[in-house]
Amino acid sequence: MQNTDFLNAIKWTDDGLVPAIAQDAETGRILMMAWMNRESLSLTAEQGYAIYWSRSRQQLWRKGESSGNTQLIREIQLDCDADVLILKVEQQGGIACHTGRQSCFYRVLKDGEWQTAEPVLKDPKEMYS
Amino acid sequence: MQNTDFLNAIKWTDDGLVPAIAQDAETGRILMMAWMNRESLSLTAEQGYAIYWSRSRQQLWRKGESSGNTQLIREIQLDCDADVLILKVEQQGGIACHTGRQSCFYRVLKDGEWQTAEPVLKDPKEMYS
Repeated sequence: MQNTDFLNAIKWTDDGLVPAIAQDAETGRILMMAWMNRESLSLTAEQGYAIYWSRSRQQLWRKGESSGNTQLIREIQLDCDADVLILKVEQQGGIACHTGRQSCFYRVLKDGEWQTAEPVLKDPKEMYS
Repeated sequence: MQNTDFLNAIKWTDDGLVPAIAQDAETGRILMMAWMNRESLSLTAEQGYAIYWSRSRQQLWRKGESSGNTQLIREIQLDCDADVLILKVEQQGGIACHTGRQSCFYRVLKDGEWQTAEPVLKDPKEMYS
């Protein structure tokens, strides 16, 4: 049986969530940020791949379930306030974003505008067909 | 006058906030996550160093104002959902955490416990004296 003390250490939001930043364990690139509830973090720690909580769908979100782009967990880190997580991951398929890009953070502020600074690696239609 | 269209592109929370992840521009290390409101992001983009919104104090939080550990902005990135920011920063003094550590993410999940995996570089009493 899994020890759940580490879940109690976390300062969950009023909605019972905590933000989780997925970072490529090799390159340090930040891939995405999503949310976890108690169950999803518990499952993530147990099963070794990232399972988030989808706020829009209000259900567990097994990252990569449709696209195959799962995230293997190398390490889970917690911040000083115990209210933010980092997941150090191995990104399967090299694509974290639903737009078919490596990272969700593909826009950069330049001359007062958000400019797209990263190519689409795979057509989303192929990823979710 | 600053163009504010980039502020309108952001999906602010109901409280008018957006999470901002500060990442060391050189090493890729994630230093901290804090929140910004419209004013703090606008000022950050204008002045070139990180200014957050303190939710606990309900006021602008000029990072490093007391400690000297300011964060110079190298780049600001936005994610696909337009609801999370990354600040690529140059961390002055090499310390982002109020505990005197380089990063706020100094705890690692190991054997079902959060274990401290990083030394204190500077006594907080010295930082905030």
